[in-house]
Amino acid sequence: MTQESQNNTVSLKVQLRTIIFGTETPAGRAFDIGLIICIICSVALVFLDTVQAVHQRFGTLILWLEWLFTLLFAIEYALRLYSSANAWKYARSFYGLVDLLSVLPSFLALLIPGANLTLVIRVLRLFRVFRVLKLLRYLSEGNMLLRAMMMSSRKVFIFFFSVSLIIMVLSAVMYVVEGPEHGFSSIPKAVYWTIVTITTVGYGDITPQTELGQAIAAFTMLLGYSIIAIPTGILTAEIGQEIGRVRDLRRCTHCLTSGHDHHAHYCSYCGSKLAEPLFDDKAPEEEK
Amino acid sequence: MTQESQNNTVSLKVQLRTIIFGTETPAGRAFDIGLIICIICSVALVFLDTVQAVHQRFGTLILWLEWLFTLLFAIEYALRLYSSANAWKYARSFYGLVDLLSVLPSFLALLIPGANLTLVIRVLRLFRVFRVLKLLRYLSEGNMLLRAMMMSSRKVFIFFFSVSLIIMVLSAVMYVVEGPEHGFSSIPKAVYWTIVTITTVGYGDITPQTELGQAIAAFTMLLGYSIIAIPTGILTAEIGQEIGRVRDLRRCTHCLTSGHDHHAHYCSYCGSKLAEPLFDDKAPEEEK
Amino acid sequence: MTQESQNNTVSLKVQLRTIIFGTETPAGRAFDIGLIICIICSVALVFLDTVQAVHQRFGTLILWLEWLFTLLFAIEYALRLYSSANAWKYARSFYGLVDLLSVLPSFLALLIPGANLTLVIRVLRLFRVFRVLKLLRYLSEGNMLLRAMMMSSRKVFIFFFSVSLIIMVLSAVMYVVEGPEHGFSSIPKAVYWTIVTITTVGYGDITPQTELGQAIAAFTMLLGYSIIAIPTGILTAEIGQEIGRVRDLRRCTHCLTSGHDHHAHYCSYCGSKLAEPLFDDKAPEEEK
Amino acid sequence: MTQESQNNTVSLKVQLRTIIFGTETPAGRAFDIGLIICIICSVALVFLDTVQAVHQRFGTLILWLEWLFTLLFAIEYALRLYSSANAWKYARSFYGLVDLLSVLPSFLALLIPGANLTLVIRVLRLFRVFRVLKLLRYLSEGNMLLRAMMMSSRKVFIFFFSVSLIIMVLSAVMYVVEGPEHGFSSIPKAVYWTIVTITTVGYGDITPQTELGQAIAAFTMLLGYSIIAIPTGILTAEIGQEIGRVRDLRRCTHCLTSGHDHHAHYCSYCGSKLAEPLFDDKAPEEEK
Repeated sequence: MTQESQNNTVSLKVQLRTIIFGTETPAGRAFDIGLIICIICSVALVFLDTVQAVHQRFGTLILWLEWLFTLLFAIEYALRLYSSANAWKYARSFYGLVDLLSVLPSFLALLIPGANLTLVIRVLRLFRVFRVLKLLRYLSEGNMLLRAMMMSSRKVFIFFFSVSLIIMVLSAVMYVVEGPEHGFSSIPKAVYWTIVTITTVGYGDITPQTELGQAIAAFTMLLGYSIIAIPTGILTAEIGQEIGRVRDLRRCTHCLTSGHDHHAHYCSYCGSKLAEPLFDDKAPEEEK
Repeated sequence: MTQESQNNTVSLKVQLRTIIFGTETPAGRAFDIGLIICIICSVALVFLDTVQAVHQRFGTLILWLEWLFTLLFAIEYALRLYSSANAWKYARSFYGLVDLLSVLPSFLALLIPGANLTLVIRVLRLFRVFRVLKLLRYLSEGNMLLRAMMMSSRKVFIFFFSVSLIIMVLSAVMYVVEGPEHGFSSIPKAVYWTIVTITTVGYGDITPQTELGQAIAAFTMLLGYSIIAIPTGILTAEIGQEIGRVRDLRRCTHCLTSGHDHHAHYCSYCGSKLAEPLFDDKAPEEEK
Repeated sequence: MTQESQNNTVSLKVQLRTIIFGTETPAGRAFDIGLIICIICSVALVFLDTVQAVHQRFGTLILWLEWLFTLLFAIEYALRLYSSANAWKYARSFYGLVDLLSVLPSFLALLIPGANLTLVIRVLRLFRVFRVLKLLRYLSEGNMLLRAMMMSSRKVFIFFFSVSLIIMVLSAVMYVVEGPEHGFSSIPKAVYWTIVTITTVGYGDITPQTELGQAIAAFTMLLGYSIIAIPTGILTAEIGQEIGRVRDLRRCTHCLTSGHDHHAHYCSYCGSKLAEPLFDDKAPEEEK
Repeated sequence: MTQESQNNTVSLKVQLRTIIFGTETPAGRAFDIGLIICIICSVALVFLDTVQAVHQRFGTLILWLEWLFTLLFAIEYALRLYSSANAWKYARSFYGLVDLLSVLPSFLALLIPGANLTLVIRVLRLFRVFRVLKLLRYLSEGNMLLRAMMMSSRKVFIFFFSVSLIIMVLSAVMYVVEGPEHGFSSIPKAVYWTIVTITTVGYGDITPQTELGQAIAAFTMLLGYSIIAIPTGILTAEIGQEIGRVRDLRRCTHCLTSGHDHHAHYCSYCGSKLAEPLFDDKAPEEEK
């Protein structure tokens, strides 16, 4: 192998990497969008195949299509391994494992029947969609939400911690009050009931029958109704702050006023063009 | 036909147009309000006719009234076509199609029995009510809401996109865990269950039976309970900003302070009369 | 009757009025609190009497107590009529009518059995509690909430109007899709189902059975889940503004800074005593 | 007993107190964390023991472990009594009573079978976890939430008071409209139904059957749907204010600008190091 051919190989590898891992070039975007379409189709197939009527009529067709997608994903996985700067690092990454696992079980299914987990892993591949979103310039909005969530995570943790203590106490009380004869067959079941009630879901598969139980249930509902306000309040305050921060960052270079809206293109005081928001993080070159 | 009679026709056409399409003149408002009353009556009739007891007692009367309304709407449609500046443009517009479709099926029903879709289209005509609201000066409030919703639409889209990915993953997991014997007969059904649970509706027609399923269900509920906060937070922040923006726009011409409330009539600093808010968009002359 | 005795009568009337209608004197407060306790007891009696087990054991006792309370309320009504500055005006007022109606039906019940409406009217008397709250200085907080609600009422009206249009369209669609054989026996029933679903109550007494119906139901839930944010956002923004307004009204007379909290007693900048908030409306002398 | 041995005893007592009641020393933290783990294990055991399948297989093992934990807790209680500065004060404190009650019933259970309340009291011990949280520096976030809740407690009280009046009126109306034959067997039961509906829980164990009842139910739901916004609005406004207050308290000592974020380490204007937030309350030495 001459120096040139080796260079060719390297350049092919780099080119492939730009297409497969990158999202900046038109080819890279096309690849990502094509991949997303394949993933969505394969997930839709798996979803539809579980419907009895569809399975009976189109079962064989779906089986063939599923094998086609498995083959495509296998090729994609091989190409990713080949073109990656560090194959082993990619193989151990979250997406690397998901990519492998989305291919493997279909082959295993030949040997072991009913490998149901495949479909769950296929669905996990949907999260690749977030990479494509990056192309669509939705990122800064998502970033703002994520930052607000991160800022409020400590407060929300405190909240969920306190709520889970309350849930445990209420569950123990309801188990003692209602007992197994009214569907509260064990405390874990009572925990399930308390969560169903405190989140205001209210299936009605287990309901209190005694007067005392109904009184405690009513208290639980009113509690859930009022504490639903807390995470909302925390997050709203943080999002408001986040929007304020972004506005503060935008300063008109002409009249030096700040506080311009994230979506504004012109200064609302002197009308001069504003710089684009500095907000969008650089897209990471490769998943790690 | 003399020049004069032609002029008469034109002026009649213009006058009709002002009455039928316009909302500025007293006659135009009276026409619109009368039309809304007719639409509400015809919708109420259709709604009541589906009640078995009412149908048996007043069925014939309702049938006659329905034909009366259909006739009225047909005349209205003909007049709209005649008086419109551009008949073909009107006929292809959203309201033009709804107007036509609300008349047509009653005639078709003579040939084809059970044209149930008529009533749905009749109901769609209710959206004409929004035109009348314009008269009632509620518009600026509605505009404020709409703008806040538009400002937050990107963030809400990101949110619903992420939620739908989570719903799909949870549905696949629940289908595998619970299976068809506990009501999760297919993944689309599991998606229905997940939406029922994550939105805290909780019908209880499908409920998890296994311990693992109940644990995942409890997790789903707590997830739905906490992410309900996100759209609220986004919208609240935007509405707050929107109100602030409107206040900033109102500037006292006497002492030059801004920040007056949307509903304020006098400057809260110097007491001089404020100009009316510039906020109400011009009413569009004709639907396009 | 001498001048003096007439004066005595007038002064007795004025004194009675101060006690019965007023809330400023200790006697007036004692009367109001005693009345509230009587109302709560009579309502509690009526509530408990409907429990079968309680009715069988304590039925006669409750009947006697009920007659006692009716007598007391009759005396109170007579005294109010007598001491009121304008008896006829009082008799026609909302509370005057409620007071009369809470006494009348018990007497009527001697002639007509099963006058169930009495209890509903008795419950309405509970709203008198709001008068006592006035004593407890909770009023300014309640005023703030009320003002925020009034400020947002137009926006909330627009919201509920739009939602009711959406509910009607969805109801008509669901009636056509699911039909009477799946519990959607008429469009008014479908409206009931849509409200149960869109508010995320989800009884589960009527649930969609067809695939299309379940898809529309899922859409309805997600819609309800997201539009629940709108009234919250509106009200939150208004409450925030209301708190800001109250803070702006409090100005330190020493260093002239404003923006002090409603609950603050001292200026946070110079430490001097703040004037009490000007916020509590004067208590109305008499109900009209 | 010599002076020295007495000194030794005192110093042992003080050392024990530092370990058992204190959270500042490494030994104190280790003791608290170990205690929390024991409490969580004992609660988990009690929870699992109520599951029939687990009880049959591991019943004896769990019984032994439960006795082991009871013994440990008894020793802990004795040590707390011994090392406390004021044993009687500790014994009467909330945690003192909970500690005693979590030990006592296991011994009583030897004499009286089925002392179910033990488990509820065991669960109450979980609240000790809050003491450990103190170590983890989550306190200031929790404090912020608590202060916001306290600031809004008066408004929330007014809200819940008004809601409970509305609930009582609606319950009386529904009892009259639906009556015992449709599950509304008494007004307290109707109150339970109203709470289930107004909080949007919606079990579906009691549902209105008559047209009028369903109309009132729909109204109740829409009411609950809209008033859910009120506590959220109140709390959000208070949390927003609370965050603003914390930011105002942080002032850069170099350039004198205030308004720095609670999590910020450096001044965003001049880049100099900020003082740590003054916000974390001193940990109380001993529970009282």
